[in-house]
Amino acid sequence: MTAAPELLQRLQDVLPAEAILTDPDVTGSYAHDMASFCEAGAPAVVVLPRTVEEVQHVMRTATALRVPVVPQGARTGLSGAANASEGCIVLSLVKMDRILEINPVDRIAVVEPGVINAVLSRAVGERGLYYPPDPSSWEMCTIGGNIGTASGGLCCVKYGVTAEYVLGLDVVLADGRLLTTGRRTAKGVAGYDLTRLFVGSEGSLGIVVRAVLALRPQPPQQLVLAAEFASTAAACDAVCKIMEAGHVPSLLELMDRTTVRAVNDMAQMGLPETTEALLLAAFDTPDPAADLAAVGALCAAAGATEVVPAEDHAESELLLQARRLSLTALEAIKGSSMIDDVCVPRSQLGALLEGTARIAEKYDLTIGVCAHAGDGNTHPTVCFDAQDPDESRRARESFDEIMALGLELGGTITGEHGVGVLKKEWLAREIGPVGVELQRGIKQTFDPLGILNPGKLF
Amino acid sequence: MTAAPELLQRLQDVLPAEAILTDPDVTGSYAHDMASFCEAGAPAVVVLPRTVEEVQHVMRTATALRVPVVPQGARTGLSGAANASEGCIVLSLVKMDRILEINPVDRIAVVEPGVINAVLSRAVGERGLYYPPDPSSWEMCTIGGNIGTASGGLCCVKYGVTAEYVLGLDVVLADGRLLTTGRRTAKGVAGYDLTRLFVGSEGSLGIVVRAVLALRPQPPQQLVLAAEFASTAAACDAVCKIMEAGHVPSLLELMDRTTVRAVNDMAQMGLPETTEALLLAAFDTPDPAADLAAVGALCAAAGATEVVPAEDHAESELLLQARRLSLTALEAIKGSSMIDDVCVPRSQLGALLEGTARIAEKYDLTIGVCAHAGDGNTHPTVCFDAQDPDESRRARESFDEIMALGLELGGTITGEHGVGVLKKEWLAREIGPVGVELQRGIKQTFDPLGILNPGKLF
Repeated sequence: MTAAPELLQRLQDVLPAEAILTDPDVTGSYAHDMASFCEAGAPAVVVLPRTVEEVQHVMRTATALRVPVVPQGARTGLSGAANASEGCIVLSLVKMDRILEINPVDRIAVVEPGVINAVLSRAVGERGLYYPPDPSSWEMCTIGGNIGTASGGLCCVKYGVTAEYVLGLDVVLADGRLLTTGRRTAKGVAGYDLTRLFVGSEGSLGIVVRAVLALRPQPPQQLVLAAEFASTAAACDAVCKIMEAGHVPSLLELMDRTTVRAVNDMAQMGLPETTEALLLAAFDTPDPAADLAAVGALCAAAGATEVVPAEDHAESELLLQARRLSLTALEAIKGSSMIDDVCVPRSQLGALLEGTARIAEKYDLTIGVCAHAGDGNTHPTVCFDAQDPDESRRARESFDEIMALGLELGGTITGEHGVGVLKKEWLAREIGPVGVELQRGIKQTFDPLGILNPGKLF
Repeated sequence: MTAAPELLQRLQDVLPAEAILTDPDVTGSYAHDMASFCEAGAPAVVVLPRTVEEVQHVMRTATALRVPVVPQGARTGLSGAANASEGCIVLSLVKMDRILEINPVDRIAVVEPGVINAVLSRAVGERGLYYPPDPSSWEMCTIGGNIGTASGGLCCVKYGVTAEYVLGLDVVLADGRLLTTGRRTAKGVAGYDLTRLFVGSEGSLGIVVRAVLALRPQPPQQLVLAAEFASTAAACDAVCKIMEAGHVPSLLELMDRTTVRAVNDMAQMGLPETTEALLLAAFDTPDPAADLAAVGALCAAAGATEVVPAEDHAESELLLQARRLSLTALEAIKGSSMIDDVCVPRSQLGALLEGTARIAEKYDLTIGVCAHAGDGNTHPTVCFDAQDPDESRRARESFDEIMALGLELGGTITGEHGVGVLKKEWLAREIGPVGVELQRGIKQTFDPLGILNPGKLF
């Protein structure tokens, strides 16, 4: 696909030459995020604006010429939400990467969308502050992408998701107008919550060009405990006991045996391979050792075969590293993977994992599960050989069957990865026809020409 | 206003006789919430449904006959959002008051909209759980009203506002269809966040008939400290120092001298009348005394003339009671009051209070200020004699001038009370024409006939 001369000409009128990429070998590398099985087209052009005014010019041009626009951050998403559509303008925000303000009294940061999550986290850490959202891709992913997908991470069981940290936004609308929404204040209820509407909207309502984020004071370093179980059911029972007892762990993660082995194979971590499920719990309280002792006792009561508190922060960090490697390690088993993201009420976690095991057996597939267990948010990861058409078909079918099971158990098809291309048929199934009609009405209000990230969500 | 025979007939077809009120002496008592200076019309009829189906019938009838509908909870609101419009159906949800579920593992409650905040708080407390939102009216106000106005309270500095506790909703739409939105899970990002859109929408988008609320484990009982200051500026400086140092108080409240005296006059609380500002800080941590000692030292550094930690929970409760009486006590000074609700970044709190004092002087009025100081959320309360037209005019003008100052300082016209009738001209000023256009578009999507709480917000 070559960009139409008029499109290029108009973009060149305002954007500098280095901000416009047209070489198909280069633009092709912007076609995909990290999701499997998601269609993508060839972009007509990739633009890399550095200012709000440049973004406005891109959107005015797109509106004038009716060209679709696909906004992108680091393309670490897992649902195809950032995939290019044929002949689109890919609007990459990665060059707008300035931290504009960090304010310890107001506990806010003001950032451009291309700021990398880890860069922000470290910058606020130096001021004694904490930006909790920590998706596994935090070393690469951008705040704009995090806002677009409403992403989560390990922190959520205590600190919640990205949405809870977005106070205000500047957004360039489809027609190029600039909207400022939300606030810099701790509270505010002036009108409908447009800010929250943009979070998780996958670039389909506008282009986020600036965000006011809430920060928290930095908590004490967390201490981690590992508990081994002879069955995932027992591990899930421990999760319920821990939450029912009123504990507030800073993370509560589960890795099943397949995941543990995959991580050992990839990184020689020496995790215990004979157990069926490994539970990691952590506390960042004033006395984490005391909290871990209480949680360890609950794990033992639920049948843990071994309970091992980390001796220090280095050992804790090693356990977290193992957890963070999980998805990559599972992908390595057969070269390809489909990462599901089903979230159920945590009381249903055991039923979901049991059902997933049944589905794996039915389709004769390896499905490893790692989970933000404290949130009931699981990532059943279907491992398959993409060269094998039959296995690929079975992978896709099992993936869908896990989502159906999640809905049956009162859950959602996506806890934190979003809908994108991957799950758009499933969105309608989850929210129903009335919900879809209202969502389409909102889309129509914000983007009457339908040029913003078309083909995603619905 | 008498209800048209056809309207009554249709309502009687489905609703029992006791659920339909038409006596003007009775229906007239449903015309107002607790805001001053807000227009209200006479309802044609008041309905008190007990089931979702009855609410659906009311909305279908209203749609068929194009009759406006004003949803109401306990009418404790402070912006006129629940005021009747002429000839409307007042749809009171107070009879739908069942707590349907409390689940300690999933940490959720499922409730009908008419459940009183304090009733829910006590019920979950008995299960070791905690529903934080605690508006001053918590003994009377309903969860449905709290959702409609996105209300706050004393808890917000640590626990946030109502919006953060609403996971899912059942909503009867303008045309009577039932929408289920959101989730029972800890996380979920399937599509646009319609749940959050309804929170704070003041009944203008649909009728909430069921809510899934997030709960937390019950924290330890809080311990309160009182600090006296010779100026509001010094008290605001202490607030900044406390937050900058990374403390997380469970409340951080300010009462100025006018407020302190009014509370003493009303309830003989024995608060110190010689100081200009009283700061209340509390912690519900494992060792609140230690936290209070640290905060006390910061208050002293900011110039506190006296720092008095409560000796026990009874003394703490007394101090909180004084704070909760503030608005009522201020109203008693001259018989009428206008309660503002301006929220600024907390670093601007001193500037807002200083400006408010200037405005009081300019208009020759008594304006008492109590504030959720930790949030930068102030309630400057203009005390006036409603029988005195000139004083009433000055009251209204000073009230507006305080909002203008709040916007100038980077704040919002409403931190937790909402827009309603009282501030609808000001909403446009805060969110700008693009914001208004988009909000109107959303309203149009949900309520194309404009029958839901017309004349509010915009």
